[in-house]
Amino acid sequence: MQETSHPGPSRPSPSRRSGIAPFIVMEVLAAANARAAAGADVLHLEVGEPGGGAPEQALAAARAALGAGPLGYTEALGIPPLRARIARHYREAYDLAVPEERIVATAGASGAFVLAFLAAFDAGQRVALAEPCYPAYRNILQALDIEVVPLPAEADSRFQPTVELLERVEGPIHGLIVASPANPTGSMLDAASLERLASWCRARGVRLIADEIYHGITYEQPAQSVLATMPEAVVVNSFSKYFCMTGWRLGWMVVPEDLVAPVTRLAQNLFISPSTVAQHAALGAFEAREELEGRIARYRRNRDVLLAALHRAGIERIAPPDGAFYLYADIAELGMDSRELCRLLLEETGVAVTPGLDFDASRGHRFIRLSFAGEEQAVATAADRLASWLTARRPGARA
Amino acid sequence: MQETSHPGPSRPSPSRRSGIAPFIVMEVLAAANARAAAGADVLHLEVGEPGGGAPEQALAAARAALGAGPLGYTEALGIPPLRARIARHYREAYDLAVPEERIVATAGASGAFVLAFLAAFDAGQRVALAEPCYPAYRNILQALDIEVVPLPAEADSRFQPTVELLERVEGPIHGLIVASPANPTGSMLDAASLERLASWCRARGVRLIADEIYHGITYEQPAQSVLATMPEAVVVNSFSKYFCMTGWRLGWMVVPEDLVAPVTRLAQNLFISPSTVAQHAALGAFEAREELEGRIARYRRNRDVLLAALHRAGIERIAPPDGAFYLYADIAELGMDSRELCRLLLEETGVAVTPGLDFDASRGHRFIRLSFAGEEQAVATAADRLASWLTARRPGARA
Repeated sequence: MQETSHPGPSRPSPSRRSGIAPFIVMEVLAAANARAAAGADVLHLEVGEPGGGAPEQALAAARAALGAGPLGYTEALGIPPLRARIARHYREAYDLAVPEERIVATAGASGAFVLAFLAAFDAGQRVALAEPCYPAYRNILQALDIEVVPLPAEADSRFQPTVELLERVEGPIHGLIVASPANPTGSMLDAASLERLASWCRARGVRLIADEIYHGITYEQPAQSVLATMPEAVVVNSFSKYFCMTGWRLGWMVVPEDLVAPVTRLAQNLFISPSTVAQHAALGAFEAREELEGRIARYRRNRDVLLAALHRAGIERIAPPDGAFYLYADIAELGMDSRELCRLLLEETGVAVTPGLDFDASRGHRFIRLSFAGEEQAVATAADRLASWLTARRPGARA
Repeated sequence: MQETSHPGPSRPSPSRRSGIAPFIVMEVLAAANARAAAGADVLHLEVGEPGGGAPEQALAAARAALGAGPLGYTEALGIPPLRARIARHYREAYDLAVPEERIVATAGASGAFVLAFLAAFDAGQRVALAEPCYPAYRNILQALDIEVVPLPAEADSRFQPTVELLERVEGPIHGLIVASPANPTGSMLDAASLERLASWCRARGVRLIADEIYHGITYEQPAQSVLATMPEAVVVNSFSKYFCMTGWRLGWMVVPEDLVAPVTRLAQNLFISPSTVAQHAALGAFEAREELEGRIARYRRNRDVLLAALHRAGIERIAPPDGAFYLYADIAELGMDSRELCRLLLEETGVAVTPGLDFDASRGHRFIRLSFAGEEQAVATAADRLASWLTARRPGARA
């Protein structure tokens, strides 16, 4: 049998643009998996994934689709009933009229970002985003040769971008990404702040892309779509978070009219069409409101337990957990780098959390992200262990 | 209820790179759908999609996965059992040892091309491909700012690229795409021609990317993987063609060692992971050899019926139909542009075929592509109608 690994005499090299940052959370995952494989327990507060899986109505719709004939390619922008159902969702959840023609089903929110960035921006153009942020924004932009303009957001703006931060940027800005509720902070943009950002973008012809993937998972007030403020914004959403369908790889976009044809051409070529079974399952998921709202109630209880534990341990500087299922906590006063803290915390307690470095390369060494999307008992146990461990780690704790 | 369509005072414009060519086959599809909606019959020889859907073992594996717990994100490169099964496939089908670490499950072959092109090439680099070809090669490359170097391939090389065509190119070449069997021609590269291309690439550090998506669907001799000749090539394959799982959106790649880390980083960010249910279904599909081989036998019968019909109508210049499920026929002697021919053929006979323009912008006006992946009765009826219609269209036919 032939071997297929010896290199030839002259070898090409990987592209420069593939040199994006690796995910540091993978270190945590690998360590957590190694620990679990060795028989020790692991409490997963590191993954941004709802625990329960797709709701029953989604599974039933998927089963029906499997039995109903070949699951062939669909229209590149998604099956018409799904696009119509998403349009209805905008009417019902936001009182917004969004034409189906501007709704695009995608291969997850990930696929939506690839399509949106390619349709809206050319190589060398510049897109601003607040840091900390979901690292894939930065990494996809860089892979597509779009320059990332980081806005160092602070607690005083709920770690959200502001017009003041934008005004401080030198050079042109062609796009702005906002996320509300955001990952890793869970914080939301209030209506007035969003309106100011939208006005700033509109006046300058800056394309606003709003990541609304955590809509529906809010604890203080419901999230309003950016489309209410800025109808010409690009909105990205997904069935992965509220609808708990991570592994199904289905998301959607609302695009302004000028991007419909470019996104259609790109989607046909880069994706052909989104997963057919996932599209049918998503139609079922829209009927699962009761089951899904029960999960939001669980996240809320998890959030409160985890917040209380951090407070007990004296960790008070936490981004406002308005929505999503994360706490982003400033651990500077413990005098440890977050990567080292995550390593030790896992080793000594079995609690896996994410160092802030994936979300903010310059300041993430003093933050950790805790996900509370998991099961209630696991989060409660993790909260207790965290509180004890962090208390013992505080400077001045009985040494 | 708010309207969401009025533009603001200043508007950004779509990117230049999204200005890739639209698919002309969409005109055929729209006309075919309109005809069907009006109650007339349509015989679909325009779509490159196997008719029967996923094999029963794939569906059974999918049903089992739906019942086995949450379908969450998987490893970015795919679940280990699937990567191991694909490695076994290389041992069994090609007698090649491919380490699992170099196998990457992707969101269809489409996702594989996006990852391969981004990992291997920077903006401004130049990738050669033979025309006619699958149009997404060209369109994805252009969307990613990679320059396409078309090689005008002729019937004398089975419409495949040659070292002679490569030597005629002015300026550098960083990559070469080959496809065997190819779309739209169905033609294959013989071992000697592939060896010459591989040597040429190896000597110059040119990255060879081989599209092996039609492997398993061959009529004259089995296709050998390019990895037998060039272990450091990038190979793209899919569960869409031989395994008949188009709408599941699952493909795979074999990448050389230097691209494993770049592809991993890109896959994590651009896709997160491939469809989980599709990965489980694919494991089932590998067990469906008997059902799938029955489909190849059907394609062969369809091919022979369609070839005979074209010959009856005096259409003799047809690319060698070694594999895949297409005939690419030169219709120049009919004295009609292929787009007009496709329109009229559909209107007058209900037979939908694809004009060559999608595959070859410069010469496709004198070619049509006929897909014979459909059901036997439909292909036989289409063949009869085609033979009569084309015969009547010949210059000198009773006017």
